[in-house]
Amino acid sequence: MRIGFIGIGAMGTEMVRNLLKAGHTVTVWNRTPARAAELAGDGARVATEARECAAQELIISMLADDRATEEIIFAPEFIDEIKPGVIHVCMATISVGLAQRLTAAHAAAGLHYVSAPVFGRPPAAAAAQLFIVAAGDSASLARLTPVFEVLGQRTFVVGSEPSKANVVKVSGNFMLASMIEALGEAFALVRKHDIAPEQFLEMLTNSIFPAPVYKVYGGLIASDHYEPAGFKLSLGLKDVRLAQAAADAAMVPMPLAGILHDQYMTAIARGYGEFDWAGIARLSAEAAGLPVRGKE
Amino acid sequence: MRIGFIGIGAMGTEMVRNLLKAGHTVTVWNRTPARAAELAGDGARVATEARECAAQELIISMLADDRATEEIIFAPEFIDEIKPGVIHVCMATISVGLAQRLTAAHAAAGLHYVSAPVFGRPPAAAAAQLFIVAAGDSASLARLTPVFEVLGQRTFVVGSEPSKANVVKVSGNFMLASMIEALGEAFALVRKHDIAPEQFLEMLTNSIFPAPVYKVYGGLIASDHYEPAGFKLSLGLKDVRLAQAAADAAMVPMPLAGILHDQYMTAIARGYGEFDWAGIARLSAEAAGLPVRGKE
Amino acid sequence: MRIGFIGIGAMGTEMVRNLLKAGHTVTVWNRTPARAAELAGDGARVATEARECAAQELIISMLADDRATEEIIFAPEFIDEIKPGVIHVCMATISVGLAQRLTAAHAAAGLHYVSAPVFGRPPAAAAAQLFIVAAGDSASLARLTPVFEVLGQRTFVVGSEPSKANVVKVSGNFMLASMIEALGEAFALVRKHDIAPEQFLEMLTNSIFPAPVYKVYGGLIASDHYEPAGFKLSLGLKDVRLAQAAADAAMVPMPLAGILHDQYMTAIARGYGEFDWAGIARLSAEAAGLPVRGKE
Amino acid sequence: MRIGFIGIGAMGTEMVRNLLKAGHTVTVWNRTPARAAELAGDGARVATEARECAAQELIISMLADDRATEEIIFAPEFIDEIKPGVIHVCMATISVGLAQRLTAAHAAAGLHYVSAPVFGRPPAAAAAQLFIVAAGDSASLARLTPVFEVLGQRTFVVGSEPSKANVVKVSGNFMLASMIEALGEAFALVRKHDIAPEQFLEMLTNSIFPAPVYKVYGGLIASDHYEPAGFKLSLGLKDVRLAQAAADAAMVPMPLAGILHDQYMTAIARGYGEFDWAGIARLSAEAAGLPVRGKE
Repeated sequence: MRIGFIGIGAMGTEMVRNLLKAGHTVTVWNRTPARAAELAGDGARVATEARECAAQELIISMLADDRATEEIIFAPEFIDEIKPGVIHVCMATISVGLAQRLTAAHAAAGLHYVSAPVFGRPPAAAAAQLFIVAAGDSASLARLTPVFEVLGQRTFVVGSEPSKANVVKVSGNFMLASMIEALGEAFALVRKHDIAPEQFLEMLTNSIFPAPVYKVYGGLIASDHYEPAGFKLSLGLKDVRLAQAAADAAMVPMPLAGILHDQYMTAIARGYGEFDWAGIARLSAEAAGLPVRGKE
Repeated sequence: MRIGFIGIGAMGTEMVRNLLKAGHTVTVWNRTPARAAELAGDGARVATEARECAAQELIISMLADDRATEEIIFAPEFIDEIKPGVIHVCMATISVGLAQRLTAAHAAAGLHYVSAPVFGRPPAAAAAQLFIVAAGDSASLARLTPVFEVLGQRTFVVGSEPSKANVVKVSGNFMLASMIEALGEAFALVRKHDIAPEQFLEMLTNSIFPAPVYKVYGGLIASDHYEPAGFKLSLGLKDVRLAQAAADAAMVPMPLAGILHDQYMTAIARGYGEFDWAGIARLSAEAAGLPVRGKE
Repeated sequence: MRIGFIGIGAMGTEMVRNLLKAGHTVTVWNRTPARAAELAGDGARVATEARECAAQELIISMLADDRATEEIIFAPEFIDEIKPGVIHVCMATISVGLAQRLTAAHAAAGLHYVSAPVFGRPPAAAAAQLFIVAAGDSASLARLTPVFEVLGQRTFVVGSEPSKANVVKVSGNFMLASMIEALGEAFALVRKHDIAPEQFLEMLTNSIFPAPVYKVYGGLIASDHYEPAGFKLSLGLKDVRLAQAAADAAMVPMPLAGILHDQYMTAIARGYGEFDWAGIARLSAEAAGLPVRGKE
Repeated sequence: MRIGFIGIGAMGTEMVRNLLKAGHTVTVWNRTPARAAELAGDGARVATEARECAAQELIISMLADDRATEEIIFAPEFIDEIKPGVIHVCMATISVGLAQRLTAAHAAAGLHYVSAPVFGRPPAAAAAQLFIVAAGDSASLARLTPVFEVLGQRTFVVGSEPSKANVVKVSGNFMLASMIEALGEAFALVRKHDIAPEQFLEMLTNSIFPAPVYKVYGGLIASDHYEPAGFKLSLGLKDVRLAQAAADAAMVPMPLAGILHDQYMTAIARGYGEFDWAGIARLSAEAAGLPVRGKE
């Protein structure tokens, strides 16, 4: 299939490589051209304007956030360039509200819009091990199935209204952020009682919480080293805000989300914005009067 | 070994049965005699006073909470009855502070005290699948190894100071309570956006959170049925308080624990104290204006 | 002066009456015409379209919220109707962000925009006892002085950038909402210890907190009667959101605001949206298991 | 009257001076003898043991906290020394639970116990301008009236059960701590929007919050200087804990108190324990990325 892929970050790069390997013709565009240019060696066609991507048989967008997505997709020349019946699937983590506006705008132009955000970090993207959460009209989803199979290990369909996939995505990220915060608080507690966090983590992950995410994030927190980031703390704030916006719009009080929001803002004020988002645990350690572990 | 077992609740009953099956001679005592009497048919000797248990080769206590443990163990006649060199292992979820006082009291009497709280519900106790977190002097722990093997699937040793096992236990329970609260808030969010909670749970447990506790608690919350309780919500408040007490003593701010404390108290005020502690999620649903699911 | 006054609610009605009494010629407009029509008897000219108000020497807007303000003021025909050099002063409680957009839009059209939100309820508006917080260019503020003197007891000027007045207004409302929540929690505590809330309030307002707002809100909470509302709880949520939006934009963590947001949403889910915003205290009482006072 | 006064801190010193001026014979005792000795010059008799104070006609205790009060008053030789019918009035801020135990212990010995904690800082104590909250049997309260008149400007009687005075006192301190936290958050918000905190405070205290405590604490926060402390931040934590203990015992969720608890612990971990408790506002400023004001 001729695919236009917009947004070549750490995730997009790996996703495009998998699409190319599977034999698709991929036209890529990125605001910072250098990142897109790197994919030429993998066989991608590098566009100089985003609307070149709009002119393909399938459009995938994977831009950084709402603002970037709005600027590109709602640019007047973009939607006009899309051919009738073409699907635009947004795989980025955007707001529920923007997904609703994208759905309406595409429908008004006789186009198909699908939301399909993903769970997984760049290594999972490279290994085609992403989890994809998709929502849209069933015909579009059927046409996308082979594409999703090239990108991820499993696709969860949550209905025909695209924004529902975004609700599920931001809810899942809220669950992750809550888990990280809980780990941070618990680790501060055990450390303050002179228990090695590794020992506590070993117990947790071999008993009640035998899930990889506990091992991964628990390991980062135990080591108290958060750079380079797998997923930046500043993006964690973005995601907490998305959950809060979805909650506020639907009148759902989420006290844990309130705590998370303030913790992320505080961490950024302390200069931890470039840390992996597990670095939120540094706040709990500091608030307990614990030293940075590398310096203990 | 001749074992005195004090505290025959849902957990204690199963644990005693496993000890009997393994060939130990077990003398049991319970404040409410009927529960202890039921074990006579399994071969247990039923004591009429707690101090009969104190006179055995090994003492295991599994009482409901701090108050019950203090009343029995600190009763003047109890410690006097224990023979020199005997080990008392407290497997109940008690406070870090009480564990410290028990350690001191036993040491003063030339006795050995071990803390060995467990993770697992009654069915896990019956199947000898508990996770045991143990701390105490290494000689005592060595002597206890065969006993622990009869009761659980794995023992995690966290040091020689008994109270550390209690720190780990209350921290683990805090992690569970945080997870349940996060699930409750996220489920309210997806339900309010017209997504079936089962669908969200299916996604979570087959992607980022493939741990049984997510399935179990997520399933309870999705069904919105919390009775009969596997672990009562009122006991959840007890456990949150234990984490907060350990945190307060060590000067560790735990904002999530503060939220949990208020949620459990509110739930009890609404009459949910006898619910399973997953029932805390009912509060999030109600606060979002959602109906009870059975009545949707 | 010929004044166009847009937004004839409980506050606007009283403000227009004071302007008329002071000899101004006031043209009024309201989305629901009946409310504006009532002022005809006081001497107001009743406009059939908002832009008639735009054509006066001074424009005062006092609309319900951001949405209403945007719809009227940003309607294409509105700003075009304003004559060069005319001042538009928005006295409603709008967001900091909207104030910034209004400032830019008026400047682009060669007009003057001033933010001048007020503290005070309808009786204070009727008595010309409002507190006005104003920000804008100094020439405009000087021209507005006699108008503000007709409407309020004191004007606080907080600079030349209009949105600063809105920051101060939403911060002040946050202080009020925090005070009400604290009163609600404290009253639940004393009531649960069998102390009459009136007795506690009597002590507070005659010792550490001798401010009228403590008497007024404390009295409402002690009586546990919240209708009719002086200021609706649902508007309290609006104001908390304005404070949170200003905080989020400037990266200021406000944990109390997070609590307030969830309490207001929960109260609305329980059907208390039409209560006076002091009714947030009902939640604290209920969460403590206390009965409604009228039914004690 | 012959009065035994125990606990000669900043408050006790001023209170004793007023009692001496009024013609009472005062025997003073303090754990650190130097502080008591200073009062000899004012005419006080300096005891070498606390029980000398117990042997007077009236006993006033003003010790630092629960622990100090328990150690002195529950020392076996102390209560035995008190003569039948003598009143012990505890004016310190102690826990509701300790007040209940003191009530029981005195009653068992045929003595009278009254709780009479105070609002006011040392300058108010020196000027006999304290607010006294008293509870106890009415005969004792009647006998204490002339003593209270020497110490304070007004006495609020809240019933015959002494611990109720402590409930009111800890609730009042919770109100103060909530106000300070709200001021800290609001000041961070206005500062981040480039508004001078003095300007915001000027508005607040001349409009909706014309109470001296707002001026005093607002002034400290605006200046961002917290030393020397009028009331130490570490004591603020003690008082928040007292409110939380009273709330926990009565099953009253107090989300604001949870926030305060964590803020005070965090502030102490940052080294602010010796600050005035208004210094909690430094946390909000730091979390917003604001510089210390003296260094702006």
